Amino acid sequence: MSHIRSRFDKPPDELVVKYTSSLHFDWRLYSYDIRGSIAHARMLAKQGIISNEESNTLEKGLVQVAEEIEQGKFEFKPEQEDIHMAVEARLMDMLGDVAGKLHTARSRNDQVALDLRLYTKEAISETLGSIRKLQQTLIKLAEGNKNMIMPGYTHLQPAQPVLLAHHLLAYFEMLLRDFGRFEDCLKRTDVLPLGSGSLAGVAYNTNRQFLAEELGFSDVSRNSMDAVSDRDFVIEYMAAASVCMMHLSRMAEEIVLWSSAEFKFIELDDAYSTGSSLMPQKKNPDVAELGRGKTGRVYGKLMGLLTTMKALPLTYNRDLQEDKEGLFDTVDTLLSSLKVFSGMLDTLKFKPENMRQAVNQGFILATDLTDYLVCKGESFRNAHGIIAHLISYAVKNDKTLNMLSLDEYRKFSALFEADVQKITVESSIAARNVTGGTSLKQVEQAIKKAKEIACNL
Amino acid sequence: MSHIRSRFDKPPDELVVKYTSSLHFDWRLYSYDIRGSIAHARMLAKQGIISNEESNTLEKGLVQVAEEIEQGKFEFKPEQEDIHMAVEARLMDMLGDVAGKLHTARSRNDQVALDLRLYTKEAISETLGSIRKLQQTLIKLAEGNKNMIMPGYTHLQPAQPVLLAHHLLAYFEMLLRDFGRFEDCLKRTDVLPLGSGSLAGVAYNTNRQFLAEELGFSDVSRNSMDAVSDRDFVIEYMAAASVCMMHLSRMAEEIVLWSSAEFKFIELDDAYSTGSSLMPQKKNPDVAELGRGKTGRVYGKLMGLLTTMKALPLTYNRDLQEDKEGLFDTVDTLLSSLKVFSGMLDTLKFKPENMRQAVNQGFILATDLTDYLVCKGESFRNAHGIIAHLISYAVKNDKTLNMLSLDEYRKFSALFEADVQKITVESSIAARNVTGGTSLKQVEQAIKKAKEIACNL
Amino acid sequence: MSHIRSRFDKPPDELVVKYTSSLHFDWRLYSYDIRGSIAHARMLAKQGIISNEESNTLEKGLVQVAEEIEQGKFEFKPEQEDIHMAVEARLMDMLGDVAGKLHTARSRNDQVALDLRLYTKEAISETLGSIRKLQQTLIKLAEGNKNMIMPGYTHLQPAQPVLLAHHLLAYFEMLLRDFGRFEDCLKRTDVLPLGSGSLAGVAYNTNRQFLAEELGFSDVSRNSMDAVSDRDFVIEYMAAASVCMMHLSRMAEEIVLWSSAEFKFIELDDAYSTGSSLMPQKKNPDVAELGRGKTGRVYGKLMGLLTTMKALPLTYNRDLQEDKEGLFDTVDTLLSSLKVFSGMLDTLKFKPENMRQAVNQGFILATDLTDYLVCKGESFRNAHGIIAHLISYAVKNDKTLNMLSLDEYRKFSALFEADVQKITVESSIAARNVTGGTSLKQVEQAIKKAKEIACNL
Amino acid sequence: MSHIRSRFDKPPDELVVKYTSSLHFDWRLYSYDIRGSIAHARMLAKQGIISNEESNTLEKGLVQVAEEIEQGKFEFKPEQEDIHMAVEARLMDMLGDVAGKLHTARSRNDQVALDLRLYTKEAISETLGSIRKLQQTLIKLAEGNKNMIMPGYTHLQPAQPVLLAHHLLAYFEMLLRDFGRFEDCLKRTDVLPLGSGSLAGVAYNTNRQFLAEELGFSDVSRNSMDAVSDRDFVIEYMAAASVCMMHLSRMAEEIVLWSSAEFKFIELDDAYSTGSSLMPQKKNPDVAELGRGKTGRVYGKLMGLLTTMKALPLTYNRDLQEDKEGLFDTVDTLLSSLKVFSGMLDTLKFKPENMRQAVNQGFILATDLTDYLVCKGESFRNAHGIIAHLISYAVKNDKTLNMLSLDEYRKFSALFEADVQKITVESSIAARNVTGGTSLKQVEQAIKKAKEIACNL
Repeated sequence: MSHIRSRFDKPPDELVVKYTSSLHFDWRLYSYDIRGSIAHARMLAKQGIISNEESNTLEKGLVQVAEEIEQGKFEFKPEQEDIHMAVEARLMDMLGDVAGKLHTARSRNDQVALDLRLYTKEAISETLGSIRKLQQTLIKLAEGNKNMIMPGYTHLQPAQPVLLAHHLLAYFEMLLRDFGRFEDCLKRTDVLPLGSGSLAGVAYNTNRQFLAEELGFSDVSRNSMDAVSDRDFVIEYMAAASVCMMHLSRMAEEIVLWSSAEFKFIELDDAYSTGSSLMPQKKNPDVAELGRGKTGRVYGKLMGLLTTMKALPLTYNRDLQEDKEGLFDTVDTLLSSLKVFSGMLDTLKFKPENMRQAVNQGFILATDLTDYLVCKGESFRNAHGIIAHLISYAVKNDKTLNMLSLDEYRKFSALFEADVQKITVESSIAARNVTGGTSLKQVEQAIKKAKEIACNL
Repeated sequence: MSHIRSRFDKPPDELVVKYTSSLHFDWRLYSYDIRGSIAHARMLAKQGIISNEESNTLEKGLVQVAEEIEQGKFEFKPEQEDIHMAVEARLMDMLGDVAGKLHTARSRNDQVALDLRLYTKEAISETLGSIRKLQQTLIKLAEGNKNMIMPGYTHLQPAQPVLLAHHLLAYFEMLLRDFGRFEDCLKRTDVLPLGSGSLAGVAYNTNRQFLAEELGFSDVSRNSMDAVSDRDFVIEYMAAASVCMMHLSRMAEEIVLWSSAEFKFIELDDAYSTGSSLMPQKKNPDVAELGRGKTGRVYGKLMGLLTTMKALPLTYNRDLQEDKEGLFDTVDTLLSSLKVFSGMLDTLKFKPENMRQAVNQGFILATDLTDYLVCKGESFRNAHGIIAHLISYAVKNDKTLNMLSLDEYRKFSALFEADVQKITVESSIAARNVTGGTSLKQVEQAIKKAKEIACNL
Repeated sequence: MSHIRSRFDKPPDELVVKYTSSLHFDWRLYSYDIRGSIAHARMLAKQGIISNEESNTLEKGLVQVAEEIEQGKFEFKPEQEDIHMAVEARLMDMLGDVAGKLHTARSRNDQVALDLRLYTKEAISETLGSIRKLQQTLIKLAEGNKNMIMPGYTHLQPAQPVLLAHHLLAYFEMLLRDFGRFEDCLKRTDVLPLGSGSLAGVAYNTNRQFLAEELGFSDVSRNSMDAVSDRDFVIEYMAAASVCMMHLSRMAEEIVLWSSAEFKFIELDDAYSTGSSLMPQKKNPDVAELGRGKTGRVYGKLMGLLTTMKALPLTYNRDLQEDKEGLFDTVDTLLSSLKVFSGMLDTLKFKPENMRQAVNQGFILATDLTDYLVCKGESFRNAHGIIAHLISYAVKNDKTLNMLSLDEYRKFSALFEADVQKITVESSIAARNVTGGTSLKQVEQAIKKAKEIACNL
Repeated sequence: MSHIRSRFDKPPDELVVKYTSSLHFDWRLYSYDIRGSIAHARMLAKQGIISNEESNTLEKGLVQVAEEIEQGKFEFKPEQEDIHMAVEARLMDMLGDVAGKLHTARSRNDQVALDLRLYTKEAISETLGSIRKLQQTLIKLAEGNKNMIMPGYTHLQPAQPVLLAHHLLAYFEMLLRDFGRFEDCLKRTDVLPLGSGSLAGVAYNTNRQFLAEELGFSDVSRNSMDAVSDRDFVIEYMAAASVCMMHLSRMAEEIVLWSSAEFKFIELDDAYSTGSSLMPQKKNPDVAELGRGKTGRVYGKLMGLLTTMKALPLTYNRDLQEDKEGLFDTVDTLLSSLKVFSGMLDTLKFKPENMRQAVNQGFILATDLTDYLVCKGESFRNAHGIIAHLISYAVKNDKTLNMLSLDEYRKFSALFEADVQKITVESSIAARNVTGGTSLKQVEQAIKKAKEIACNL
């Protein structure tokens, strides 16, 4: 701090120190910062900018700082603005003058960009793993409950019978797209910014390729002004996380619905429910509700950073400091949500008889009747109209479809024959035997495919 | 916790505990929680639901818990879910069975609604104070620099000369609307929810009016189902905060611009600037930049809670737990921004000669020339066209307006007379002597009015 | 256009014309623009800036333009940028030179601010009316179905029995706060900006008080720079609309749930449902779903304008043109949603027997049992624990509460006596006789109060 | 309509028709709808579900409907809900009963998903083209102004000299990432949903692979429930568009700044500027401002759809209808912005002398002095401190660096030698000769690379 302010006559106002400090959140970057510094020291030595001895001294010092932090012995001082200054200050205490050489051919602008990219790469990798795990849980559930039948809904109205496994695999697909988005985000994150200096590049004979290899980056940034002011990778992570949380919120909504007394399709495990302080009978799906609620938080962070970045002139502006908290919170929220949802799904019990009962009521086979008439030669639109009138008749006479006699059927179309009464929930499901359809055969193939994708790691 | 879970066979999964706990942020509500509990105990005694002695015991216990927390002696245990349970558990340890009576005629649903309203009322009151303080700083600056002239901009192009004081008072007006919005928000926050039970009201002869008086509420909620699931007051605070941060972001943008080498209208105090690790010559307006950047964060929290609340069925759902962190962060961000901006403005130095120089270049008196012709009888649109051609001529001949001879003027309109050359920056400002205009007379009145509003507290 | 560009050598690029034109949406402001111009002409005449004859001519011309637009005879030309230029150009055609006088002492900046405020005032007034109407529908439903009992939910789990009327009135309360927010927004919208010129005020002896009276404004803006760049009133409308749509989305969610085959609490009228192209049996709550979905649209517009306004330096910047489309869409969406929801509610049928059946299953009287023990002297927390164990026992033995014998009750607490079996859904509701509670007496009072507020217009 | 409602006793309320209709915006999908229907008819014939003759009749009818729409002869009727019904109704009029066969093995749910994917694929393709074009403009400008020097800014303070070309290429890099994101989005959009039926698949022997080939899709959806309720591809387009608009907003901000009287780095072409109604001297960067302002609109649509999708249970819900308007507006806004920015950049004039002058003032070579000392053996941190004191001295003595004598230099460090005075703006730029740095050599390579990427189409 004192170094950086050396031109100034006054220390910063105390309010300012508090307002501008990022140490209370960016300490989380310490391990990335230290990894980056070690690689930088090695590179400086390799290029003859500092001596090998100096590099070794720096590296040992940095390792020690990391240990101190991990062991809780490191003293974070609020006036040290950020983790980079905190590490450097400790290094100065420890090593004296040689510590001052570490910042050669480097600026905080490229250093912070580096740390954040290293963090984000690791976050993406953990995210991919957690998505995969939730996918595996879904596959396990689908496979283990392969013959359960439930209503498929549109507009939350029972529309056609489907296999529960088919419904579960819809979420597998959503998560597969999420997986792809995070992989794509990784490509654009996996680029070394170090060596861009403050904004213009550095005036030393550095070796950025060596740095990239040391730090495991696939590519090196191509424009220094862009490299220090680019936070696309953070926004892209947040956007992918928003979509993923949206998927979890849909799943959460269904878990809440399915746990309700009115649906009763599932029972959550005690370990994944909570009670009420006033109503002892309650078994609340709090985990699902919280996951649904946390969607707002993740969307909000995305919106926040997009807003922060809007209309900033090049290159680095202090506004960019607002990139970290939102990202950390998004990563924490997404990872914990993915994990806790895996556990919640893995432990819940389905109630097949209730699902089946929900299938039986209503006119869930209406589409099959329409298809029946089409097969007998009626045009689709006419068939649709005929079945609509038939249902209207049944509703008015308080009958379900299987209570109708063939004569009653034939009042609406002469094409109905005795085989109309062979249409069942099972036949309905079996008939939907196209790619992506809900027939058992298709679902079994889908499970097989899903296992190839998500279980052969 | 054990109490609440007593129907369950299993403890919650560890991941679930971590996922659902709010103690790490809602401990901030402890003082409101304890105030609420003391009032509740008194009410229960007053109504004969518990004895006076029990009430006294509870009150003493609660006061002690508060002290333990303030003195850092209180042990927060992660498994205690939230601040309400943490306080109650400690009370149980301390007082035994009688502590169990405190929850009579109360639910966590109305309790948490109460705590959050008490917190928000206090936050609004602090916000109003901080807005007022920034307004006072603006008045002081306006009054102390009353004769400074600067370009008034549209499209960031110099348009007409204005008094710096007039420009500063524009922000006074914005903040005045902000003040009004927070006052309006207070009306709707200042309503006691306690007594609503879980959702249906309570089955005891409670006295909600007494509670309202004890806790300083002006009104009592009129519908228990609404009362436990209403978070409008939080959203309304966040919306008002978003607009206020938007105003600060505009001010921040101008401070950044005015600090630039190209404008040089101001110099920030060393205590409100920061340096660069690589470029010692820099004096960066970090505080303004951060304030501008933090606008995104505040918008994001608003969007987050709006999203969280979307489509929640009545009444309480666990999603609502997401209300607090966003609110706390918004309050902290807004209050610290208002305070640090006051300090930054109060200590900066204007550079009147640079502002004046910026006024002199260009054709900033073009509107005055148009008005001149209108006063001589030309229609406004014709006058506008004539001046446009005149300026086009001047630009092509590389002249400023005051370099033009009367003959040159008269090439464009015979209405020009010698007095056209008396049009000056000063005459331009003086002429705008309508309510809200930039003439010194109007600005002095505006300062007087502003002082009446914001300084007579 | 030609007038405004007279300094330029080139016409704007065609892409630019299309990109910058606002005529395709701001034509909606024509009536406000013309009202403003008439008032302005009268003021100019009153102050002797133009003659009475000129004012009369202008006024007649403006009235004719309005008629042409209303009768669909007006030709909107894309190159006329905006409605203000379109009206002025037509006036020029019609009246010649005198039309050029109308813009005296006025700028497009204060003109557009005026038009938008006039529009918003009218929008607020319509919004207040539509909210009131929906409140009246809720009162009517509450009053007409006063004795219907339904489960009150927390976490979408039945928690305690409530009166349907009580549930409906929760929405009355939400709408009442919405009403208040729009009224508060009106105060800050009802301020005349005209007379602020481009940014600095005008150099004519105008009479802003006269303008305010002519145009029905309660107040006159106090700072010209603020007046031309302030869009707080638009954001405030959008924020209030976002909260109101959030309320409607909650109502919509419940309508969707209650229409489901699993809940069956209501049946929507055919006129407010739609069918399916493939499944003739479906009766879909599309109106409720769309209302729920449109919440996103309204939130998005709010976020959009907040973002647009972020960090704009004073005063007018072209970015501000983005204020209108979002506002228009928000007003249209909110008004149509309020209206269509009124109709949907007014025509739906409740199914009291289904609601009642939902009340009977489960352990919805658990709280009443707890309260029972507390009245017999048990502390609340102990009572809670006892009832929790009792329910656990009942669940395991597959019994409901009213299937338990007194002996079974007494296994859990000796305090249980014969009167425990008198606890019923009705007694539960009647017991919650506190302000805001669900007892019939309280609900009747709430209805009375609601009628005083919302029906005595 | 009548077909779909045939079970209902009442027509929909007029308000409902207006509220639920999407025809006024989804007519834009007509060509995709008709392409999809033609492919569907061919597939039905190929599979023997309808006859070849029927298929031909349907195809001819569909081609004619398309022509009627293109020629403005098609009558859109508001009661026809959406474009799919409008096309089908016309086909019925035209062809009678056979038209009713087109909907065999298809639902509006998979039909609308298909149309929207076809539209989005085309939108992505146009977006990629427009990004490329803007990149080419940037390359052209960079190459054509290769030797211009300007200040590189951090915190809007001049920090180090850079080549203008280097600055321009930073935007090339941003756009390159945008390009990649849209390409990645395309992968997930390029999946055929048709054949999913309402939600469960279809009960006909269809051929989805044939459909995919006919319609140019690379893949076929694997889960019907997901396929009809997935709008990830729309959100992903919007997220990529938001980041791209953010980049344009940064460029816009710089154009506004650089056009200002204080910077004067550029002059916009008359065709890309607009004037003022009141101030004829103004040449306003309206296009840049509008582009910057429209960023809010694009963010808002993203937030809107994310909100709409939140917590929707599977599968199709009417809320999804809200997907289209936001997408259309986003595509229109992004494409027009990219195009108009290309034109604006292509026609603006740089003012190299003003940029150069801005470089010369201040202490822009401070970093080079620090590097100088480091090369002489000083540690970086010490060197930083020394230069800071040197600058402090210069500021107090009102001198620039090149006004300091060697003696003055040596007061601060004995390492300074005569060659310190050879440090120039040019040497500074030349020294930054690392990958991504601003040296002419690096910039020339970057231009070459950029051309390979973006010009070899």
